[in-house]
Amino acid sequence: MQNASAPATLSSAPASPAPGNVSSVRPRIVVVGAGFGGLTAARGLASAELDVVVIDRHNYHLFQPLLYQVATAALSPAEIASPVRAILSRHANATVLLAKVVEVDKEAREVLLEGGRRISYDTLILATGARHAYFGHDNWEGVAPGLKKIEDATTLRRRILLAFEKAEAECDPAERRALLTFAVIGAGPTGVELAGALVELARRALAGDFRNIDTRSSRILLVEAGPRVLPSMPKSLSSKAQAALERLGVEVRLASPVTECDRHGIVVGTERIPVRTIVWAAGVAASPAARWLGADHDRAGRVKVQADLTLPGHPEIFVIGDTALALQADGTPVPGVAPAAKQQGHHVARTIRARLSGAAPPGPFRYRNLGTLATIGRKSAVADFGFVRLSGLLAWLLWGAVHIFFLIGFRNRIVVLLEWLWAYFTFKRGARLITGGEM
Amino acid sequence: MQNASAPATLSSAPASPAPGNVSSVRPRIVVVGAGFGGLTAARGLASAELDVVVIDRHNYHLFQPLLYQVATAALSPAEIASPVRAILSRHANATVLLAKVVEVDKEAREVLLEGGRRISYDTLILATGARHAYFGHDNWEGVAPGLKKIEDATTLRRRILLAFEKAEAECDPAERRALLTFAVIGAGPTGVELAGALVELARRALAGDFRNIDTRSSRILLVEAGPRVLPSMPKSLSSKAQAALERLGVEVRLASPVTECDRHGIVVGTERIPVRTIVWAAGVAASPAARWLGADHDRAGRVKVQADLTLPGHPEIFVIGDTALALQADGTPVPGVAPAAKQQGHHVARTIRARLSGAAPPGPFRYRNLGTLATIGRKSAVADFGFVRLSGLLAWLLWGAVHIFFLIGFRNRIVVLLEWLWAYFTFKRGARLITGGEM
Repeated sequence: MQNASAPATLSSAPASPAPGNVSSVRPRIVVVGAGFGGLTAARGLASAELDVVVIDRHNYHLFQPLLYQVATAALSPAEIASPVRAILSRHANATVLLAKVVEVDKEAREVLLEGGRRISYDTLILATGARHAYFGHDNWEGVAPGLKKIEDATTLRRRILLAFEKAEAECDPAERRALLTFAVIGAGPTGVELAGALVELARRALAGDFRNIDTRSSRILLVEAGPRVLPSMPKSLSSKAQAALERLGVEVRLASPVTECDRHGIVVGTERIPVRTIVWAAGVAASPAARWLGADHDRAGRVKVQADLTLPGHPEIFVIGDTALALQADGTPVPGVAPAAKQQGHHVARTIRARLSGAAPPGPFRYRNLGTLATIGRKSAVADFGFVRLSGLLAWLLWGAVHIFFLIGFRNRIVVLLEWLWAYFTFKRGARLITGGEM
Repeated sequence: MQNASAPATLSSAPASPAPGNVSSVRPRIVVVGAGFGGLTAARGLASAELDVVVIDRHNYHLFQPLLYQVATAALSPAEIASPVRAILSRHANATVLLAKVVEVDKEAREVLLEGGRRISYDTLILATGARHAYFGHDNWEGVAPGLKKIEDATTLRRRILLAFEKAEAECDPAERRALLTFAVIGAGPTGVELAGALVELARRALAGDFRNIDTRSSRILLVEAGPRVLPSMPKSLSSKAQAALERLGVEVRLASPVTECDRHGIVVGTERIPVRTIVWAAGVAASPAARWLGADHDRAGRVKVQADLTLPGHPEIFVIGDTALALQADGTPVPGVAPAAKQQGHHVARTIRARLSGAAPPGPFRYRNLGTLATIGRKSAVADFGFVRLSGLLAWLLWGAVHIFFLIGFRNRIVVLLEWLWAYFTFKRGARLITGGEM
């Protein structure tokens, strides 16, 4: 893959009907990104008379909603990631390519890969997701990493566990205090879930393992610029979530934009708080798909798409998931959540199949909000289904059930369920490893 | 930990009875290394009237015998690693320190840590293990990594899985062939187990997931300089193991010293074999403990110890496990295996407790060979218990039972057992992740 002299065709392997740059008989659909949107689209095209090529930089599909549990040592990476090849193994019309896309040539209808290879397409589906955004403070990334990739999660796990180790060895009380202070910036679902998990790690899982520090005295701050936690949820649930977080011991700071972020800590308003571990959960920016396409995009980099999720003027290019800015009937954007990406993947697959068979297209995409959920900690979560709002134990059980159900792969479902049961009954964490680098 | 201005005492935390450099009332035992030997020694001193300080570079105890299963995507790192703090959490006299030892000051009786801190000891136990040795070919390490640490295993997993990915995208048949060739150098237990696991990965777990290559055509070479595989086992079991490997599809090359090793492949005798993935399982060298001590050592760097496992002239310094060269009654060295390290840890703990109570020391250390086991693949292993030798299914079941039994932690036992059952029935691998770096 890193071979710069790699040939320009997708493949010329002898045995199988490999797609080449010469137009094959069957139309070729190239899907970039094997997240919720891309994978759903590829699976939705399984039985169609076309070739599907799925390109991703990673060899696995990552279940991002549980990534914070890897960062807080509750789950192992492999428990929330499944190899894309294995997922699509029985889809005879699907080819998986581990590669990094660097450009799209709309005129030639080709995707350019790192190393110079070109993959031609008849239809392109861009589902490349998002990264975190620092709103002009890109230099904060080093001290306040975000949480989108497996490597982000293991890096964060490393930093969190090392903070306790350093505190144990530290003699200066002020420095020890700073090492035992953790700041999560941004109180959306990821921030809320991370803060809750951090409290449990400090108060329960690590308690008793150290000799010179009391991990239960750790301070976990959840800092939010807006007026409430979980801003996408109804106000009543925001209050309930905040109360539950505070009961757990999280210090919730609302209407508190962070104005400075460095290795000494954060500045909130005029107050400087010494913190050694900062997590960024405040903002996302779309992947560079808009740049590849030279397309119209919003401030967050999301590509503006039409009602059928195609790029204006390019019915052969679909953009879905966190990469796309799709407007709903009321003018608000489709939210950047997994169910929305999946629904868009389905919709695109239906559209392509309709085109293939000459049937009428399925009409404009409409996002169906099936409900939103956020867990706060042990036996505590909030859920909003429009017609009913839940909080507490019931919402927590529902949260668990939904996440197990949507995990890909029977094995992962079983293993995650067992890890959760074990953690519930023992209060311990199964993946407390500091890996990658010598301390 | 990385703070160069850290104070010179172990700790001056206010609340707990932290050990300082001033001699405390209770004698302090410093254990360097939380492997099989060090951990057994620390646990063996649990109820004694002394302070135990366990120092390790990692925050976890690693069950090295199963590391090859992480490298071949069968297990996740956290499934064979347990946090040292959690293991020793209930041992009130034990303190755990995450730190890197850089020197030992025998005169001052102090261990020097990276960053300048000094930890004084009354008794020192060095159990720092071994790394792989390249017998004067240190430049081979880059192309032929060994397997001792978690990072080694995830790096190797990455290389192995990437080789298949690159082969899938490769058009040149010769290069594809080289990418699908894997060489394991050294046919001791690790090499044999790795070769067997690689065959299963290629023939079973990955079969059907690729479109342009047939992973079942992969070539797995096991190259050994000596005359037989598993040289530490009886000849009859070596033959059985070799036959089993060959039935699986491993190409066993005996009496074949590797004379060259580079990114194009290996040279065996006069034959150059194009290989893109090489694993080093041929030799180990002790950790730098001999250098720290300025002690007499053998070619492999093992510290020559007396019958009671102490350094000559230093009854307060014990060296155990792979770091030590302890001779048996017949003049042969105690083998570098986990049971030997554990027995030595027990013996040292007994000696220290005897000294404390003024009782007679337990006499010279004697290694009791409880049997050796090596697995080859599905339903196939060899076992030697002296009085009885087993091979095939029974040895395989025994191998599995023994390894589950000796894993530390109930959770790990359950999870590994489930992973194995799942792999047995589905032929799949649970941890097929290419992580760390962008391809």
